[in-house]
Amino acid sequence: MRRLLHQPLDPVCRKIRLALAEKKLAFETNTVRPWERREEFLALNPASEAPVMIEPDGTIVSNHRVIIDYLDEVYRDPDGGLVLLPGGPVERAEARRIAEWFDVKFAEEVTLNLVDEKITRRFLPRDLGGGPPDTEAVRIGMHNVGYHLDYISFLVERRNWLAGDMLTVADLAAAAHLSSVDYLGNVPWADFPEAKEWYARIKSRPSFRALLADHVAGMPAASHYANLDF
Amino acid sequence: MRRLLHQPLDPVCRKIRLALAEKKLAFETNTVRPWERREEFLALNPASEAPVMIEPDGTIVSNHRVIIDYLDEVYRDPDGGLVLLPGGPVERAEARRIAEWFDVKFAEEVTLNLVDEKITRRFLPRDLGGGPPDTEAVRIGMHNVGYHLDYISFLVERRNWLAGDMLTVADLAAAAHLSSVDYLGNVPWADFPEAKEWYARIKSRPSFRALLADHVAGMPAASHYANLDF
Repeated sequence: MRRLLHQPLDPVCRKIRLALAEKKLAFETNTVRPWERREEFLALNPASEAPVMIEPDGTIVSNHRVIIDYLDEVYRDPDGGLVLLPGGPVERAEARRIAEWFDVKFAEEVTLNLVDEKITRRFLPRDLGGGPPDTEAVRIGMHNVGYHLDYISFLVERRNWLAGDMLTVADLAAAAHLSSVDYLGNVPWADFPEAKEWYARIKSRPSFRALLADHVAGMPAASHYANLDF
Repeated sequence: MRRLLHQPLDPVCRKIRLALAEKKLAFETNTVRPWERREEFLALNPASEAPVMIEPDGTIVSNHRVIIDYLDEVYRDPDGGLVLLPGGPVERAEARRIAEWFDVKFAEEVTLNLVDEKITRRFLPRDLGGGPPDTEAVRIGMHNVGYHLDYISFLVERRNWLAGDMLTVADLAAAAHLSSVDYLGNVPWADFPEAKEWYARIKSRPSFRALLADHVAGMPAASHYANLDF
């Protein structure tokens, strides 16, 4: 069986869970704590980061970007499964550009300030940055999320999905980041109806179910988190 | 003519210059200052980041990762030019993994502490983080560079190039980052002979010439920077 070593609320790990499920590729998950730098984990990925995917034949693929490309190259036309980067080079570049927008800009401006402050730091030892959330960082993260919901609204006013007519890795990346922030209840959906409509579409896909069942011990999800009619 | 909007000493822009030259694709460059957030530049790339490539037919491709994939898809087999991601999915994943190592880990642990502190911050207005280098950051960057030279040595003791038998985007990414740090004279080559031998090989390639001719006004390159026998 394929194995994914992940952290449940880490958006780039969630993106891979969505990608595997959309491709209808079976997998089981193991939660890892990369900051412990255990030898067995470093042997799989010297960068000591999740996600790491272990294929049924033993092939190890680490790094979220690398896994996306690997999956689309090896399982390009699975039975009814999603092509993550469809179309020609220009369409593929647009899907990649928007996925990077979320995996870099949204990550720095929102995820780092909300998910890392409120969740990741609870699990870290103090010498690695553990502790209570920095309220100024949380304030900045809450402020920034609106800019990104505006950008999603701008895109879906012009397109069916974020990168064009088809669902792509851009939608999975954006939804993965938003889903982690939404777990905390920090997405002001009511103010961004177009973005909310897009998220409702992707949230109702079968690939999303496992994400909606996640829970962090001692930190329950926001009440609407798993609700498809939010 | 193809145009590349870049920042001369930014490693991810340098990676694209190397990739274009290795593919024997002609291009001209314009230096941009993304932090000014000019409307014309935002219209090309809403993320307001270099590099942005404008193809002769007007196609705009922004983001260094996106440009690499676009180039390899559109110009897969140019006349004698380099394939950036050669081989099958496993070989390609390894080249991507190592390129990410440099574009993420080296960038955070070394480039940010040395190149951004000593060069980028000279050009930024004070309210965007401009000012003299933070000496503690510089100390950390100088310390970290050794770990990465060790990793390069580990790889080239086992392989011809960083990702395997062939030159790939992994070598271009690593060399691009090291070249910017080497401009400052902060690479302790003498302590890492295997890494130095690898860098000498890539530095002597014709694709490297334009990088070795760069100079930042008011900050001359280290004396050995352009020397092939360093």
